[in-house]
Amino acid sequence: MHVDSSSPPPVASSAAAELPRSPLSLRRVAIDTWRENVAYLHRDCAVYRAEGFQALSKIEVRANGHRILATLNVTSDPRIVQPHELGLSQDAFDQLGVERGHPASISQAEPPDSCQALFRKIAGERLTREDYAAIVRDIANHRYSKIELTAFVVACNRDELDREEVFFLTDAMVASGRRLDWHEPLVVDKHCIGGIPGNRTSMLVVPIVAAHGMLCPKTSSRAITSPAGTADTMEVLAKVELPFAQLAEIVSAHKACLAWGGTAHLSPADDVLISVERPLSIDSPGQMVASILSKKVAAGSTHLVLDIPIGPTAKVRSMPEAQRLRRLFEYVARRIGLSLEVVITDGRQPVGRGVGPVLEARDVMQVLENDPSAPNDLRQKALRLAGRLIECDPDVRGGDGFAIARDILDSGRALARMQALIEAQGSKGFDHHHPALGHLSFEVCAPVEGMVCSIDNFQIARVARLAGAPKVKEAGVDLLHKLGDQVAAGEPLYRVYASFPADLEFARQASQKDSGYRLGSASDVPQVFVEF
Amino acid sequence: MHVDSSSPPPVASSAAAELPRSPLSLRRVAIDTWRENVAYLHRDCAVYRAEGFQALSKIEVRANGHRILATLNVTSDPRIVQPHELGLSQDAFDQLGVERGHPASISQAEPPDSCQALFRKIAGERLTREDYAAIVRDIANHRYSKIELTAFVVACNRDELDREEVFFLTDAMVASGRRLDWHEPLVVDKHCIGGIPGNRTSMLVVPIVAAHGMLCPKTSSRAITSPAGTADTMEVLAKVELPFAQLAEIVSAHKACLAWGGTAHLSPADDVLISVERPLSIDSPGQMVASILSKKVAAGSTHLVLDIPIGPTAKVRSMPEAQRLRRLFEYVARRIGLSLEVVITDGRQPVGRGVGPVLEARDVMQVLENDPSAPNDLRQKALRLAGRLIECDPDVRGGDGFAIARDILDSGRALARMQALIEAQGSKGFDHHHPALGHLSFEVCAPVEGMVCSIDNFQIARVARLAGAPKVKEAGVDLLHKLGDQVAAGEPLYRVYASFPADLEFARQASQKDSGYRLGSASDVPQVFVEF
Repeated sequence: MHVDSSSPPPVASSAAAELPRSPLSLRRVAIDTWRENVAYLHRDCAVYRAEGFQALSKIEVRANGHRILATLNVTSDPRIVQPHELGLSQDAFDQLGVERGHPASISQAEPPDSCQALFRKIAGERLTREDYAAIVRDIANHRYSKIELTAFVVACNRDELDREEVFFLTDAMVASGRRLDWHEPLVVDKHCIGGIPGNRTSMLVVPIVAAHGMLCPKTSSRAITSPAGTADTMEVLAKVELPFAQLAEIVSAHKACLAWGGTAHLSPADDVLISVERPLSIDSPGQMVASILSKKVAAGSTHLVLDIPIGPTAKVRSMPEAQRLRRLFEYVARRIGLSLEVVITDGRQPVGRGVGPVLEARDVMQVLENDPSAPNDLRQKALRLAGRLIECDPDVRGGDGFAIARDILDSGRALARMQALIEAQGSKGFDHHHPALGHLSFEVCAPVEGMVCSIDNFQIARVARLAGAPKVKEAGVDLLHKLGDQVAAGEPLYRVYASFPADLEFARQASQKDSGYRLGSASDVPQVFVEF
Repeated sequence: MHVDSSSPPPVASSAAAELPRSPLSLRRVAIDTWRENVAYLHRDCAVYRAEGFQALSKIEVRANGHRILATLNVTSDPRIVQPHELGLSQDAFDQLGVERGHPASISQAEPPDSCQALFRKIAGERLTREDYAAIVRDIANHRYSKIELTAFVVACNRDELDREEVFFLTDAMVASGRRLDWHEPLVVDKHCIGGIPGNRTSMLVVPIVAAHGMLCPKTSSRAITSPAGTADTMEVLAKVELPFAQLAEIVSAHKACLAWGGTAHLSPADDVLISVERPLSIDSPGQMVASILSKKVAAGSTHLVLDIPIGPTAKVRSMPEAQRLRRLFEYVARRIGLSLEVVITDGRQPVGRGVGPVLEARDVMQVLENDPSAPNDLRQKALRLAGRLIECDPDVRGGDGFAIARDILDSGRALARMQALIEAQGSKGFDHHHPALGHLSFEVCAPVEGMVCSIDNFQIARVARLAGAPKVKEAGVDLLHKLGDQVAAGEPLYRVYASFPADLEFARQASQKDSGYRLGSASDVPQVFVEF
């Protein structure tokens, strides 16, 4: 290892300069810090007192006309950075778009301007439209620390936001990023508030409504705490990370796409907020509404069908709660100019059989192929949601949507559209008749005879995640029995697939602690208290 | 640089083991991450999928019977860690107390047990004594992420805690650490709620009351966001980081000490909570009371005089607010068995002249030496607080304390006791007649003629900090004029000292933006609405 022994540049004179000169030389440090910018300064840095800077929460790094905020780490290892260098973690370095050796300066980061508004919210005040605009702008520009972000999220929790404030927040989130315009009067989308494993209806609804002739440019997220997002599952079949120009071409040719939305810069503040909401299991009505509706409006949607599942382990656990949430969604959608249909659905258990990208892709393809063994609950739910979307077509009579959707699916037109999308996005050649699953597996079996009377959505999702999903696409949980099934003692309830021994063990331990299944008698099965 | 090319250990079979085997070899990475444990895993780690782990907020590292939580960073640089190694940031490595190469295993960190209680508090519920005990235990054991910590702090903000909950929190904080017992019926202390620069009365009160014969084993904090804490300033005169045995000896010989409390493990949860409260400027009554009283009870104090300054830029800005805070302090003190006297003081401006360790040490020594040029406000305030403490002595009549304190100070007995403490702790040979100040300086001058009618505590503290205080002991602000002084246009208001050009520039910019001084006429000077 060669250690550069050239003397550090001289300390800048502070006489005339407005800022001290910036003789630090930038260097990319091969450390991936996962969404957090980290700057590395040598303890003997000749220009800045590393120690003094470190007590602060953030520093600002300026180079090449860009400014980024970073947490400062101090090192005494010249192999990481030398005294005249400023190291940056991979992502941070890439944000500046410069070569190694580019000059950079640092300063103590000022608290973001909107912090005064944040402090007022923490103190319980109602904020104005301008306040939300300023806060969301700073969040989208990564000027908030994790501490500030969490404070904002907790201060906006529960009923701290009135519905007008939820509209302000939504509107600010739309304005914080790009907004697509498809130059069509009808741009449809569907969305679920989440929490139900295996709920991959989008991959059925999109080809159905596109085959009906509606524009449905679907951009989805990857899973954050769930075992698969639509983007993760679609990626089993085709490429999902596409440049926007190609996406637009596909949408123009096929009326649809099923792509990852991450590169589109839609409502970027939302992604930042989610990073602190998830670990706290915070999903307050206001934040949920702002998050979902801002993404849809930014993506250029004009009509949205929203799926709110109810169940004992779903996000929404009672009908009154669902109705309150529905009203809030409807109010904000009307204010922001989005036509919204809310559908309350059965969230008592996972949808379909597979939980994890490959397993879910298998389920979806079985439904599209009208395979008799396809999971019927997934098929029915997708048809009902697609039917509601199709009824947004002014030429369709209310109530006719379901039959139209079923006809499109049964005729193979939905499958054909899906295949066209897969080809257009770049096929991965997935063979759902012989899906490549993780080579390690175990079964979780019924300890006694009985009827499956509850399946814990959260625990099934957890086991699938521990098994490696969604990063390991072939990992996950395959449910062999659903609510109402009678099983014998020792009969397998589900099978867990993994590709790494450590993952398998983590999943096994979790399922041993709590399988997620409860067995009982017919009267123990909770009633479906939802209807379309 | 030698790169170890030995092949990584084989992947553990997961057949029988309850946990995957742990073939990672520990390594100390020379990165100081400032209070955050960071673990470094090579991207090609043969045992764990680095990628899968990283999406999680925390991992648990187990080695040598210890468990610590850490944030995971992934690197592809074998000079930082090799594929069979687990790197730990300096502090994290030191917590495990092992040698390089010690075997370690990692797992996905489970959320701390008390998170369910945290989530209930976020949801607005009242928590029980057991809930607070569990939460504070997890916080003290560093099991909370910054996100969880912030959520707890914000959820306990404002009036979210009733006074019984504040007692539960205080009690839990005492129980989370060590509790000293001095085996004396009367152990006195004083404390200020903070926010007033230059307010170094402890360094006068302690020698005075000790000279009176009271036990006053004072442990103080270092500054966190202020330009100097008592420990920082005392460190100009003597060593303050002392092993507990030596501290106990000094107290036994001199009835007092003026040491840093950091090593004593008193109310450790408080230090953790402070790390998120400060950046949010959150200082809710409940948290302030729990923080201060838990430290005092843990330090073995039986009697406390508490200083609550009021002023336009103090923490408490009105008398009703001060009275509310006083009642809460008194309620919790009574529940926890501490005898408390609250004193409401003048917080309209900094106390004394110097702001920063060396400058404040100079002021303190001038008062102790009865130097005619000593700042009188510091002397008067210290005498009044010491007087109140002396009145805790059952042999002293109410109202006699001030005169006794003044006699001790005027007679030189306080100075003698201070010199004894300095010698006992280890003198630094500070010459306050010729204090070594930063060799760089500038003056901030009056832009117009007028009377000093406000001095912003916050802004003066900020300028002193930017100049380098408290890390650079000889940096700070020397106030040349105080409230009510008549100044001519161009006359210097204060002088800023620094040792590094960059620091000087940062301080200059801040003072140019806002000097912290306002000039006007006599009627603009806010009234003192406090009396002892």
